[in-house]
Order: sequence, then C-alpha cells, then structure tokens
Amino acid sequence: MLTPKFEHLVKQLQVLPGVGQKSAQRMALHLLSKKRPQGVSLAQALETAMCDIKECSRCHSFSDDDICPICADVRRSDSELCVVESAADVMAIEQSGAFRGRYFVLGGHLSPIDGINADDLHIDELIIRLKNSAIDELILATGATVEGQTTAFFISDAARPFVGKITRLAQGIPMGGELEFVDSLTLHQALQNRAFI
Amino acid sequence: MLTPKFEHLVKQLQVLPGVGQKSAQRMALHLLSKKRPQGVSLAQALETAMCDIKECSRCHSFSDDDICPICADVRRSDSELCVVESAADVMAIEQSGAFRGRYFVLGGHLSPIDGINADDLHIDELIIRLKNSAIDELILATGATVEGQTTAFFISDAARPFVGKITRLAQGIPMGGELEFVDSLTLHQALQNRAFI
Ligand SMILES: [Zn+2]
Ligand SMILES: [Zn+2]
Repeated sequence: MLTPKFEHLVKQLQVLPGVGQKSAQRMALHLLSKKRPQGVSLAQALETAMCDIKECSRCHSFSDDDICPICADVRRSDSELCVVESAADVMAIEQSGAFRGRYFVLGGHLSPIDGINADDLHIDELIIRLKNSAIDELILATGATVEGQTTAFFISDAARPFVGKITRLAQGIPMGGELEFVDSLTLHQALQNRAFI
Repeated sequence: MLTPKFEHLVKQLQVLPGVGQKSAQRMALHLLSKKRPQGVSLAQALETAMCDIKECSRCHSFSDDDICPICADVRRSDSELCVVESAADVMAIEQSGAFRGRYFVLGGHLSPIDGINADDLHIDELIIRLKNSAIDELILATGATVEGQTTAFFISDAARPFVGKITRLAQGIPMGGELEFVDSLTLHQALQNRAFI
C-alpha cells in the first residue's frame, strides 16, 4: 500500500505467531517512526539466532555451542533426567525453578496418525544414554495429551530395565484455577489423585 | 535462560509494540523450531526497511524513493489535499478506499505541554504549498483528540487565505458501535451532527 519495502516487511512480520496483517502494520510503523536503530538490532539478533543457534548434541535443546549451558552446568545433578517434547518445555520448567537435574528433548511426541513414530524422535538415543549412565530418576514430562501420555508409556516400557524410578508430572487443578472453569477430564484426574491436607 | 543468543533475540523482539517477555519467547521458539528460513527473510526485510525507507520529500509519508507512490501516481487528483498527523493515518485512509487525492503528513500534532509547536511540524511547508498550488479542498484529517482538533484549527486559520474549502472528518458513532459502549462525548457529537435519513 504505502511503498514496496514497507509492504514486504509487513508480509514477513506475519511469520511471527499471533501476528496478522493489522498488527504487522502496527509493528512496521512503530519501528519506522520511532525505533529504527532498535529495528536494526532486532534484524541482526534474528539473523544471528536463525543461523547460529543449533541443537545441543547431548540433550537436543537449543544451544549456541555444541553443548548447551544446562548440560554444561557442573552444579546440576546428573541423577535426575527430565524428558520433554521440545525446547519450549525445557524453558517452561526452567522458569518454574523446580528442577535442578538434566533434560532430554525428544523432538515431539508419538503420533502414528501424523506418521510420527519412535524412529522420528530421539528415543533410541535416550535409551542408550539410560543404559550407559547411572540415573536415579527418570521424569517423563511429556504433555498431558493423548499423544504425550502414549509417548510417556512407550518410553517407560523401554526404560524400565535401566532406571529404578520412573515418574511423570502430577495432573490436577492448575494454580488459581476456578473449579467451574476446569474441564471435567482434569477434575476427574484431580479427584482420583486427591491428597491429604 | 536457554542460551545467550536466544536470550538476546527475546530481548530485542520486545521492541515490537504489544510484545512482552512471554510472547517474545513464543516467537523466538516458533521461528527456531519451524521457520528458520522465514526468520532469516524477516531479518533481511527488517534491516532493509529500517535502513532504506525514507520520508517522501513531497508529503513526508514513508517512501522507498524520493517521491512516494501516492505523490507519484498521475491518476490521483491534485485538487484535494488531505492533512494527517502520521504515515499510519495515510495508510488507514488508503485502506478505507474513500480518498483519491494527495496527502500531507504533519509529523504529529500541536502539543504545547510536550513542547511541540508549529515549528516542529511541517506546517510552514504546507502553507507554502497551498500558496503555490491550486487546491480545491483541504481536508484536515487530524485526530479527534484535543491536540488533533487544536492542530486542525491552527492550520485552518493559516490556510484560509489560500484555499476556498476547508473541511474535517465527520465525528459520530463508529460503524457497528453499540450505543451503550460509545462514550458520552462521542454521543454528544453524534447527536449534534445528526442527519436526515
Ligand atoms: Zn544440552
Ligand atoms: Zn509522498
């Protein structure tokens, strides 16, 4: 509409999740009007991240280097391994501050309907790692979805010979959740898993 | 949290309007996981736009070249000039499809309290342009705010000797606006400006 380079930017911005034509335009106008140096910094940060960030060779999370900061951190415990679907899940758990062990990122969940089988995830590699190292507890933190749970059961079967303690995340009412807004499946789980206070 | 280049990208993304820590993280993860080539294209579009887009020397809207596509378009009418505060306003009016004349971007509105006086806007240049060209109608499409209206009154005074017809945008109930959600100032205006049907 305004000018080709502007239109091109507006189109490219829409690759960002949750950004449509309208907010892309607002973003482009904002940067052009008031934040050009910051826009250039953003462009450079983007390009660097897209080109330089790779997968940690140990946990398959994102990393600037061959080994990520979490795998490289000597203060973290090697005796607990937390298996998640994606690097986003690593970040969510890190932000909770509730875990000081290591992670292993599967790269997704089993979903035969989408053609995603055990070979498409890093499951073999996980089992080899469990075979070759002394882990006290394997935490299967896959999603609370049908696929996530199927994936957890599949791994727990394969891992059983090599780990004494295999756990998964508790399911129940989310903090701050009003009962009337919680779905009935979650309520069912929360009732079954009820605990003494 | 994850890795320095990731953290840097998340920080830089927050220059975008409406993007906080949480959505910046979601954007970075989305691009890194599934859209790296598109992320690189976005970076390049951003850098090009920030560095290459300038102000049209005629209307002060954004332009890739010295003269913007609207000023350069020979099919548009020279007899109507629409004065707006910003390039974003040009875009909004263009998208309405209701105007086929030329624009002039002031670069803001008068706001003595913020130290923005006539000299800080392109008002002198506008008056010179009006003096030197035959314009049938000057449309003052500044914002429906105190500052926008003050700016419109200031310009209409200065432009009066050079233009026969000076107008401003109608004020009233927005399309689709439920009366109960319209503020009372707008209702007041809409009642005063009521029209036969
Ligand atoms: Zn790692
Ligand atoms: Zn122009």
